[in-house]
Amino acid sequence: MATGGTINRRWCLAARPVGLIKESDFVFREEPIPDPKEQQVLVRNVYLSLDPAMRGWVRDLPTYVPPVAIGDVMRGFAIGVVERSRNERFHEGAYVSGPLGWQDFALSDGSALQVLPENPVIPLTAHLGLFAPVGLTAYFGLLEIGRPQPGETLVITAAAGAVGSLVGQIGKIKECRVVGIAGSDEKCTWITDELGFDAAINHRREPVAEKLKDVCPNGIDVHYENVGGPLLDAALALISLRARIVLCGMISTYNDTGPVPGPYSLANLIIKRARMEGFIVHDYAARAREAMADLMKWYTDGRLRYRVDVVEGLQQAPRAINRLFDGTNRGKLIVKV
Amino acid sequence: MATGGTINRRWCLAARPVGLIKESDFVFREEPIPDPKEQQVLVRNVYLSLDPAMRGWVRDLPTYVPPVAIGDVMRGFAIGVVERSRNERFHEGAYVSGPLGWQDFALSDGSALQVLPENPVIPLTAHLGLFAPVGLTAYFGLLEIGRPQPGETLVITAAAGAVGSLVGQIGKIKECRVVGIAGSDEKCTWITDELGFDAAINHRREPVAEKLKDVCPNGIDVHYENVGGPLLDAALALISLRARIVLCGMISTYNDTGPVPGPYSLANLIIKRARMEGFIVHDYAARAREAMADLMKWYTDGRLRYRVDVVEGLQQAPRAINRLFDGTNRGKLIVKV
Repeated sequence: MATGGTINRRWCLAARPVGLIKESDFVFREEPIPDPKEQQVLVRNVYLSLDPAMRGWVRDLPTYVPPVAIGDVMRGFAIGVVERSRNERFHEGAYVSGPLGWQDFALSDGSALQVLPENPVIPLTAHLGLFAPVGLTAYFGLLEIGRPQPGETLVITAAAGAVGSLVGQIGKIKECRVVGIAGSDEKCTWITDELGFDAAINHRREPVAEKLKDVCPNGIDVHYENVGGPLLDAALALISLRARIVLCGMISTYNDTGPVPGPYSLANLIIKRARMEGFIVHDYAARAREAMADLMKWYTDGRLRYRVDVVEGLQQAPRAINRLFDGTNRGKLIVKV
Repeated sequence: MATGGTINRRWCLAARPVGLIKESDFVFREEPIPDPKEQQVLVRNVYLSLDPAMRGWVRDLPTYVPPVAIGDVMRGFAIGVVERSRNERFHEGAYVSGPLGWQDFALSDGSALQVLPENPVIPLTAHLGLFAPVGLTAYFGLLEIGRPQPGETLVITAAAGAVGSLVGQIGKIKECRVVGIAGSDEKCTWITDELGFDAAINHRREPVAEKLKDVCPNGIDVHYENVGGPLLDAALALISLRARIVLCGMISTYNDTGPVPGPYSLANLIIKRARMEGFIVHDYAARAREAMADLMKWYTDGRLRYRVDVVEGLQQAPRAINRLFDGTNRGKLIVKV
C-alpha cells in the first residue's frame, strides 16, 4: 500500500506493552482519509519522531500527560504537509509540526500545530530535533535546572542521543568542561571528534565509576541525566559541592516490569548540599521563542550539530522505537512515513 | 570516679564501628585535667548532645567534616562552664556551648565557643536543641530548602525527634498542614496533641503508604526527610507538582554496612518537576542570628515546644547514642556529664 493514496494507515495501541514494545502491542489499521471540517486541516505526515518518552505514554498510568488509550492512534510528534485546509491560519502546501500521531494523515484544528518557517538553511528533519521539543529539552534542562557556570564540569548520559548531544554542545558554548557517557565507541568518537566534547566514556566497555573519576578530577558540577540506574549512581558518587543533577529521563528503567531501586549514593546529596531536580519541557512552552532564537543563532554559526537516523516506512515504527532502548540508533530517530 | 575531681575522663575512639556503635568502639581514659595556655579556656562540660550525625563522623570517610581519628576524643556539641580562662572574651563561671567533645573538661581557644545568654526563661538544655544547631537545622532546612507556602502539606519523618518536632511546629507557624511520621504511638500522640501537628502516622504499626495517602489527599508539597529508606519512598510516591524534598538526614541507613538502594520512585521527580536537595546546617552559620531571633520569639510566645531525654553520666554516652537509632529516645537526647 503506497503512501499518498486514498487510504490512511494508522498504528493504534492494541495492548499495554510489558517490557520492550512489541509490534503486537499495536494494530495496523487502514481507514479512509478523513475530510476536514470547518476550522480543521488535513495533514499528510512526512517525518515521525520516535522518542523515549513514548514508552511512558503507553503505560496505564497518568504522568504529565494522560496515557494513550487502547484503540487510539499512537501519539507522536511529526512533520507533515497541509493537504487540505479549512482554517485560514494554514495554507495548503505549508509544512507544519505537532502531535500528528503514527499515521499517514492527521486531522487537526491547528491549535497544537506550528507552521515551519521556510528557511532553506534548515533541513526539514531539524524541526524534529534541534528546533523541536528535543532542542528545548536540552536548552531549558541544562540552562534553567543545571545552571552551568564557565569552567564547571558537566557530565551527560546518553550523550550521543538527540537531547544529550545538544546538551553537551550547549555546555561547550557555555564554556564548561564536558564529559559524555555513551554506549559505543562510534558514539564516543562522534561526540569528542565531531561535537567537541572534552572526554567520552563507553559505558558498555569501560568501568564507568573509575573512568569518570579520571576525567572529572575536580568532581561533577552539573550532571544531566537521561539514563538512570548505575550511571546516575556513578555520577552521584562524584558530585562536587552544590552540584546540580538535572533529571531529564531514565531510559534504562522504562522497560522494567518491576520496581527499580534508586541510586545508592543518594545521601551524597546531603554531604554535598546538592540539588536533584526533574523537569518537563512542556512547562517552558511560553519561553520557546527565546530558546529557538539562541538555538538558531548557534546553529547558523556552526556551533550546534546534530545527526538523524531515518527509518523508512510507517510500518517500521513499532519495531524501530526499540532502537532507542537497545542504543543502536545513531542520532535523532525518525520514521520517514 | 566523681565528676569535678582532678581527673579528666574522656571517651576516645578506639575502632571504626561496624553497624550499631558498640561500647568497645571507644576507650574510656582518665587523664589529668589540662592547664589552659595563653588565650585558652578550660571548660567543664555539663550537658553533652547526642546526635545522629555522629554516626557519620566515626566512619573512615571524609564527609562535610573530617572523620574523628582513632585515638581522638569523640567529637560532640556540649554545654559547659568556664572553669579557668586565659582569654578575655570568657569570664570564669560563664556558660558556653560548642564542640567540646565526650569528656569532663575541654580546652579551647574560644573560636568555636558561644557564650550562652543569661536568660532565666530559657532552660540550659534548650541550648543543645532549640537554640543550637538542631534548631537552625529545622529552621533553615524547612524555610530555605523547603520554602513552604501557607496551605501546603508538609510531611516530616522522625517527626518526634529533636529536629523533626521543631520542623513541624515551624510548619504550623507558616500555616501548613503538617503530617508527622514517627515510631511509636506515644510519639504520635505527643506531636498531634502537644505540638499541634494535623496528623501522625506510626510507621512501626501502620501501613505508611496507604495512611499517608489518606492524610495527604492533595499530595505532599514539602517533604522533610530525616530517615530515608522506605519512608522516603512512600513520600516520593505522593509528591505534588513542584514539590520540594528536603534531605536533612537518612538515619535509617547510618548503621548499614553495605550499599543501600535509593528510592524506587525517583522518576517521580521528573513527572512532578520536583526538587530534592540536601543541606548542612553549618552553611548557614552566618545567618544564625536571624534564625535565633525568630526561634526566640516563637519560643517566648509559646508557639515552639521541645522536650529533652537526659541520660545521667558520661560513662553512658556510647550506649545511649544507639537510642537514636532504635528510636527509644523521647526528645532531644542529652548526656548529663
